[in-house]
Amino acid sequence: MTSEPFEYAFRIRLHDTDAAGRLFFMHIFRHAQDALEAFMEHIGFPIDRMIRAGDILLPLTHAEADYRQPMRHGDAVRVQVSVRDLRRRSFAVGYRFLDEAGEEAATATTIHVLVTDETTVGEALPERLRAGLAAHWIQPGGHQGH
Amino acid sequence: MTSEPFEYAFRIRLHDTDAAGRLFFMHIFRHAQDALEAFMEHIGFPIDRMIRAGDILLPLTHAEADYRQPMRHGDAVRVQVSVRDLRRRSFAVGYRFLDEAGEEAATATTIHVLVTDETTVGEALPERLRAGLAAHWIQPGGHQGH
Amino acid sequence: MTSEPFEYAFRIRLHDTDAAGRLFFMHIFRHAQDALEAFMEHIGFPIDRMIRAGDILLPLTHAEADYRQPMRHGDAVRVQVSVRDLRRRSFAVGYRFLDEAGEEAATATTIHVLVTDETTVGEALPERLRAGLAAHWIQPGGHQGH
Amino acid sequence: MTSEPFEYAFRIRLHDTDAAGRLFFMHIFRHAQDALEAFMEHIGFPIDRMIRAGDILLPLTHAEADYRQPMRHGDAVRVQVSVRDLRRRSFAVGYRFLDEAGEEAATATTIHVLVTDETTVGEALPERLRAGLAAHWIQPGGHQGH
Repeated sequence: MTSEPFEYAFRIRLHDTDAAGRLFFMHIFRHAQDALEAFMEHIGFPIDRMIRAGDILLPLTHAEADYRQPMRHGDAVRVQVSVRDLRRRSFAVGYRFLDEAGEEAATATTIHVLVTDETTVGEALPERLRAGLAAHWIQPGGHQGH
Repeated sequence: MTSEPFEYAFRIRLHDTDAAGRLFFMHIFRHAQDALEAFMEHIGFPIDRMIRAGDILLPLTHAEADYRQPMRHGDAVRVQVSVRDLRRRSFAVGYRFLDEAGEEAATATTIHVLVTDETTVGEALPERLRAGLAAHWIQPGGHQGH
Repeated sequence: MTSEPFEYAFRIRLHDTDAAGRLFFMHIFRHAQDALEAFMEHIGFPIDRMIRAGDILLPLTHAEADYRQPMRHGDAVRVQVSVRDLRRRSFAVGYRFLDEAGEEAATATTIHVLVTDETTVGEALPERLRAGLAAHWIQPGGHQGH
Repeated sequence: MTSEPFEYAFRIRLHDTDAAGRLFFMHIFRHAQDALEAFMEHIGFPIDRMIRAGDILLPLTHAEADYRQPMRHGDAVRVQVSVRDLRRRSFAVGYRFLDEAGEEAATATTIHVLVTDETTVGEALPERLRAGLAAHWIQPGGHQGH
């Protein structure tokens, strides 16, 4: 059981911004993916190895983001990654994007489902993966999951 | 009042895919933006001119997508764009991504709010913009809006 | 033998631009790839099928671009695609990015080498591919190749 | 005068790869930009502030990359950034992409020219900027510049 959400830090670069001078909305998902890959590595399931092994794939079935404050070129951003939902064969990952003042600039969620090949939904998440995710599960109300 | 949703077509290119061999999820939002820009031009409000003029900005407050079938390199995709919600100072745009068989491969929604400058939420959408959006408003249950 | 270079058209979209208000330089290569895929399809060698078949791969060994005029959000751009060099197991593709006035806004070149698998350079380009490329070969001085 | 080139590290993420299982070529330029922004910050000229101030702009006139070995999802990459050419109103930045074994997987070069506004080429690089760049200038043959 962890007491802290997993954190990932990055800076808004020129290619993240658009002619309106702020983060172009879709790029938040690239940073979410970077944070997710760092998180999955942290819990012992590097996504690159899972894809190469090919036995566990976790394609997204849903992605969403809410934008609260513009993020601009040069901004330093921290992403807090936590598991928001954990089911038999799927899970949701939540991302809080915090600015330098610790204000929430945006949030995002991705939902992943276990597939064992291109077409078959898997039976259940491997026990070790489930345990790794559960250790970072923050349930609504902020309680750690079990 | 239109009888057809606005359509935009594209092909999945190599840069849309990832090592798992399918569309990398975030790229659906780039295609949604391409479709949105074509749609806004179609209703007489090209986003590039609005940003240059600077008096009407429509930043996203929310973006989401649901992925139903993998999209792969070379796939021809049609995007049906329609207005899903239309309020005083904000609106939602819906996107249906259809494969060559007409099957729904994915759907997306973006919510836009009127701001008159970096910090001020606008009073109300300009009447002409509201009318252009209303003509493509498909309300839950599929009825055209007024 | 073609009398015209192959043409591909697109618009600069918001995600192509950056906070400096112009095309972010790397995105020209995404548009070059779009143009290349359309061109390869045109000559009967769709890249997606080649990658799926896996017997002919044409990875890039070099890419470059020269930027002559800023391209901005909303600009309509035509890309002229031609073969600039054609050798036994490699070829160069040239891209001219023309603005609405027909002015050259940028040029790009990509060099591709035949590999038959991850590690082996191929013997020679298949004759039909070579012929398709040769038909669009514009040699220095602008003469068509043979 | 520095004895070491400036280094920037990153990992190849899923969105960097394509259906062929390797880094999609254009993404090397996004990583080059990330490395450049870290480098410019390091020498006291953060690009985001220069763009906001608007008095010194350094648009690219040229970008190129050579690809020597495939880079794959999960690879840890170090980028060595150095100045390769330094003129009155322009400079070239070189990037060496090294894999975990220290092998050169790719190299890239970007050329930047000083403009004082959209249309005017600047007189000469500010002295402090020139000095910061000169300290990282590695001339052909590998000698440090002066």
